[in-house]
Amino acid sequence: MLPANDPSLSSWINVDSDSDFPIQNIPFGVFQTEKKSARVATIIGDTVIDLAALAQLGYFNEIDSNLESSFSQSYINQFMGLGKKITNAVRNRISNIFEKNNPELRDNKEQQAQVLSKIHEVEMLLPVQVGDYTDFYSSREHATNVGTMFRDPENALLPNWLHLPVGYHGRASSIVVSGTNIHRPKGQQKPNDGPPVFGPSRLLDFELEMAFVVGQPTKLGQSISTAEAEDYIFGITLFNDWSARDIQKWEYIPLGPFLAKSFASTMSPWIVTLEALEPFRTEGYDQDPEVLPYLKYSGKKNYDIKLEVAIQPEDGQPHVVCKSNFKHMYWTMAQQLTHHTVNGCNVNVGDMCASGTISGPTPDSYGSMLEISWRGTKPVAMPDGSERKFINDKDTVIMRGWGIANGVRIGFGEASGKVLPAL
Amino acid sequence: MLPANDPSLSSWINVDSDSDFPIQNIPFGVFQTEKKSARVATIIGDTVIDLAALAQLGYFNEIDSNLESSFSQSYINQFMGLGKKITNAVRNRISNIFEKNNPELRDNKEQQAQVLSKIHEVEMLLPVQVGDYTDFYSSREHATNVGTMFRDPENALLPNWLHLPVGYHGRASSIVVSGTNIHRPKGQQKPNDGPPVFGPSRLLDFELEMAFVVGQPTKLGQSISTAEAEDYIFGITLFNDWSARDIQKWEYIPLGPFLAKSFASTMSPWIVTLEALEPFRTEGYDQDPEVLPYLKYSGKKNYDIKLEVAIQPEDGQPHVVCKSNFKHMYWTMAQQLTHHTVNGCNVNVGDMCASGTISGPTPDSYGSMLEISWRGTKPVAMPDGSERKFINDKDTVIMRGWGIANGVRIGFGEASGKVLPAL
Repeated sequence: MLPANDPSLSSWINVDSDSDFPIQNIPFGVFQTEKKSARVATIIGDTVIDLAALAQLGYFNEIDSNLESSFSQSYINQFMGLGKKITNAVRNRISNIFEKNNPELRDNKEQQAQVLSKIHEVEMLLPVQVGDYTDFYSSREHATNVGTMFRDPENALLPNWLHLPVGYHGRASSIVVSGTNIHRPKGQQKPNDGPPVFGPSRLLDFELEMAFVVGQPTKLGQSISTAEAEDYIFGITLFNDWSARDIQKWEYIPLGPFLAKSFASTMSPWIVTLEALEPFRTEGYDQDPEVLPYLKYSGKKNYDIKLEVAIQPEDGQPHVVCKSNFKHMYWTMAQQLTHHTVNGCNVNVGDMCASGTISGPTPDSYGSMLEISWRGTKPVAMPDGSERKFINDKDTVIMRGWGIANGVRIGFGEASGKVLPAL
Repeated sequence: MLPANDPSLSSWINVDSDSDFPIQNIPFGVFQTEKKSARVATIIGDTVIDLAALAQLGYFNEIDSNLESSFSQSYINQFMGLGKKITNAVRNRISNIFEKNNPELRDNKEQQAQVLSKIHEVEMLLPVQVGDYTDFYSSREHATNVGTMFRDPENALLPNWLHLPVGYHGRASSIVVSGTNIHRPKGQQKPNDGPPVFGPSRLLDFELEMAFVVGQPTKLGQSISTAEAEDYIFGITLFNDWSARDIQKWEYIPLGPFLAKSFASTMSPWIVTLEALEPFRTEGYDQDPEVLPYLKYSGKKNYDIKLEVAIQPEDGQPHVVCKSNFKHMYWTMAQQLTHHTVNGCNVNVGDMCASGTISGPTPDSYGSMLEISWRGTKPVAMPDGSERKFINDKDTVIMRGWGIANGVRIGFGEASGKVLPAL
């Protein structure tokens, strides 16, 4: 375990007991204020830490005197691209600066004024410039549910599903940061008894996912083994892969989802490093049939991270409709990245790979309204007396994720988005 | 017709009669030399014109004194992003500078030495930083051929095909410029009589496509009408969407092609502007059934551009295996871009949208080996006595495209790539 993960550490910055961001987390994001242009930050408790300012004050000089440039960017890409040797050293140094017994910044109010802001005083921005975005389909329960509903309960999984991590290319341009409003998409839908029609989607859904961010590039032709794969993963974020089920159903054969997904995807503002998630490693699924040699892996490469989704009507309280866990992944991130590059496809810093909907084995752990309401046949009762089969206009969908180990809670903040009526 | 398209124009630079690049073309690309870093260029005949140098010498001062910055880039994105008012003014000014009666540069050998290079003296680079890459499937003949081979000749087109331009997201990172060698990809394939196996693809194919490049961005939520769509298209390039048919067949259900395509796509180094292609506008297909109102368009939005594909064995001559035409597009580029954004999906400068394989009505116009050899049942006889069902190691696949109108040939150069053995 890295020093920065030590559960006995505490910070001179106040951290509430239910905070996602104790000193053991140290995720990376980007913020701006009226006075400060976009720059890279971390967060402890509800205090946002301006890393460009810390670098300018010389706090990282022993690691790399050019870090100020990497932190004075609109995205964390340049920082990630420095490699884990540097980024882990930065994480450890941040841990050290904010540890309760270190007086360097603790006792310097003037420097604190340059470095620290409260989260409500800043605007969090999209943290990653996403090059290519790939969406996998790696929860067996989700794939089984979808196959049962739309195809054949006896043969719910398609023949390839247990042999490779099925995935497809998604739209990078429309990935937005938590808090961005989404307009209900319009598109073609096909009624059962007539020609296709055009209009606002009537079956707007969320998909509960997590996504990893690539931190090291490969060259065209290069492949990454499962043993190497996590070295190429900088960290993980919460991800809502918004989906219009009616548009999807009509368009997706034979080339896959397109406009049903490309109108928006919402990510949380903080990228939690793989290193911070070390305490949450857990065993993966037994894979039967045996996978081909290039997909075999050893060690614990799943992560025990609790996930939940709430729907909040405009004038109501958030109502939790799903409690799942990132450990419900049949295919690990390492297998996904290995498969992705086995044909020589190159990856770049900032590429994102989402998990696909993460459904658990029980109905209360299903990761989409399609599954929760079982195609609309089992509506969800909301506290205000209304019901939901899918997502209504003016609903806000809020995703959260966290793990707890050794008494330390490492969380992801939230990925939330409000649905506005179609334009 | 723009002044720059006037067929009576000729240049003081020599242009062979079979050149793709008369003074009426003026495409945009990026080159570097040992002495010059990457910069934006155009070409007349076989003379590459350094636009950064021309700007530095003040040749574009009446348009915009900051053009030197836009031309001193590794990609043409910044230049495209200036908008058609500027980019068309630049094209017209280039036409003027190189017109045979203009002495400005013609009579200044010292400046010519700074501006002009022969094509064999420079290295052409990938001209566009591609954000998102989308591949359509818009040739009716291609979709019919594929449906006939793999599904049902009586119902070759899937139900949605005539109602919307089917498309999917592709991989942007692996788009390479003409001349880049490609390694045969490895991946999972499924024999008919056993479990999946892993190894080099045995059915490596080309797909003859053209791709348009987005020159103006939209905001998330914004849609583009068919009447507006061409204003957002900067220009067009040749595109080889390399495909591994055996990998594709096993992986593509239900989410579409993934590793079968993502190992490489090859584009030509020059982007020919839509303005240069004005003389080649031609009527599109009658669309029956009638399309939904948002997909209707008026005017000539197809383009009569001859296309051909040659296969060149390592020690042999190029042998043409396909003669097709860009006019064989059931769905126009305007319809593609309108459909792409009708759900509010935003586009960025540098996004690319490829046509899908462009097959004509006759077997000699089919745009892939899959169709030409009809799944390998009709091998192509090569001049050296060998035959091809698909692409062999050490074959070079060469695509060319050009139109001729009013005696002027406007061409695209070539998109070529050599296949090296699997790594």
